[in-house]
Amino acid sequence: MNSDKLFQEIQKKHSFLCVGLDTDPDKIPRHLLKTKDPLFVFNKQIINATAEYCVAYKPNIAFYESQGIPGWKALEETAIYIREKYPEIFLIADAKRGDIGNTSRMYAKAFFNHLPFDAVTVAPYMGRDSIEPFLEYQDKWVILLALTSNQGAADFQLIRDKENIHLFERVISRSADWGTTDNLMYVVGATKASMLSLIRQKIPDHFLLIPGIGAQGGSLEEVAEYGMNKKCGLLVNSSRGIIYAGHSKDFAVAAGEKAREIQQSMAKLLDQYL
Amino acid sequence: MNSDKLFQEIQKKHSFLCVGLDTDPDKIPRHLLKTKDPLFVFNKQIINATAEYCVAYKPNIAFYESQGIPGWKALEETAIYIREKYPEIFLIADAKRGDIGNTSRMYAKAFFNHLPFDAVTVAPYMGRDSIEPFLEYQDKWVILLALTSNQGAADFQLIRDKENIHLFERVISRSADWGTTDNLMYVVGATKASMLSLIRQKIPDHFLLIPGIGAQGGSLEEVAEYGMNKKCGLLVNSSRGIIYAGHSKDFAVAAGEKAREIQQSMAKLLDQYL
Repeated sequence: MNSDKLFQEIQKKHSFLCVGLDTDPDKIPRHLLKTKDPLFVFNKQIINATAEYCVAYKPNIAFYESQGIPGWKALEETAIYIREKYPEIFLIADAKRGDIGNTSRMYAKAFFNHLPFDAVTVAPYMGRDSIEPFLEYQDKWVILLALTSNQGAADFQLIRDKENIHLFERVISRSADWGTTDNLMYVVGATKASMLSLIRQKIPDHFLLIPGIGAQGGSLEEVAEYGMNKKCGLLVNSSRGIIYAGHSKDFAVAAGEKAREIQQSMAKLLDQYL
Repeated sequence: MNSDKLFQEIQKKHSFLCVGLDTDPDKIPRHLLKTKDPLFVFNKQIINATAEYCVAYKPNIAFYESQGIPGWKALEETAIYIREKYPEIFLIADAKRGDIGNTSRMYAKAFFNHLPFDAVTVAPYMGRDSIEPFLEYQDKWVILLALTSNQGAADFQLIRDKENIHLFERVISRSADWGTTDNLMYVVGATKASMLSLIRQKIPDHFLLIPGIGAQGGSLEEVAEYGMNKKCGLLVNSSRGIIYAGHSKDFAVAAGEKAREIQQSMAKLLDQYL
């Protein structure tokens, strides 16, 4: 999928919502734990209830990995289910991988060959050769961490270099030509919306993946105001706020309603800024 | 395992060797591919041939992840095999994980609860709350990326801040008190041995995990000269140079010989510097 196709989907659905599948056995409704494959059963219902309101899904790999082999099985089933039933939806592995070249190549293989993901989140610390193996796959994307939404973001990402430039800005400016606007986007936390103008000066055309709306407290309006470009250029993620909106048997209905609510706010913002 | 226990093992085996299990189906001897579980069959033979010469094993998680569920099964079997048969050996998940707190907690669970690893390699970019969930486990370790052995290390790790301090130095000095010398070590590539003196000024007592010996061209002698402290303080990793030393049916014998060769060099260096 390229950026034009992604923008088409955004226009079609009047939404730039990404639903984060941070599926945790301790948080899903109790009755599902009696099923054989609770994580996938939960995801399937969430997906069917939210697919019309979102353009992307983002399973958070840690949640599956923490469950060992049954977790990986649920991840695989979830990815394949989305790919087959909703081929138009952008599928992100939130994995935050990154290693020396020959090892990153293996991670790329895991998510792009073995699993049908469109994109992987990658950590920049190890530099260019840790990122390039992911970029070698046609029609696949790297989503590089720039400015994250957590408190610890300040520890290193906000260090200023000799020219007074933040580390996260260096990450963006140095990496921007390693890929294109059709295979490289950046993670920018919604809790740092004020930084979005600065980032848009450097990379007006790249898509940004914005976590931190909802549970982490970011504002959708601010993100749109400072971050939207002429092809929208935003995927805004909400995880816990949607998938754990309900806790009873009709949890999926509650999730669908929450996703619809966010989609409707997004539709207004798209009207306003595009 | 604490640092005293690790040092005891180093003294007992006259070795500070870590064997990297970068087990790749394209590189293991052909005849193993006919077995049901080739990655584990390969690992088991490599482990039995090298265990007396090393104090640590480091499966590189990407290689298993790239094989999907059979890969995770082989990883699980390998970790359990080492833990049961060689309980004294330090077991490192080379995973380079790191995410916001609630997600890092899941990764910690994956490697410390679900799997019996002693340590996980973690990327520092997301800061303190991405690292702390791993440090909360008693007797478990974080091995934080500081200065890696790949070319891309220069892209960001060598950026100098306003006070002329490299990013990797900031990572070390800022994180050193997040843990202790009993639960926090650092990755420092052997290809950057000249930087080791500088690092030892900052953290004289921490253990360092040193990749880059062998295939990546680092020098063991230099690493010992600049990096060793009074409790050795080094785990030097070799992966491809050992595990792919032979390609025929006696591949494990070749691996054992190569591991023994390195161990003997290490024994001399331990005599020389301790």
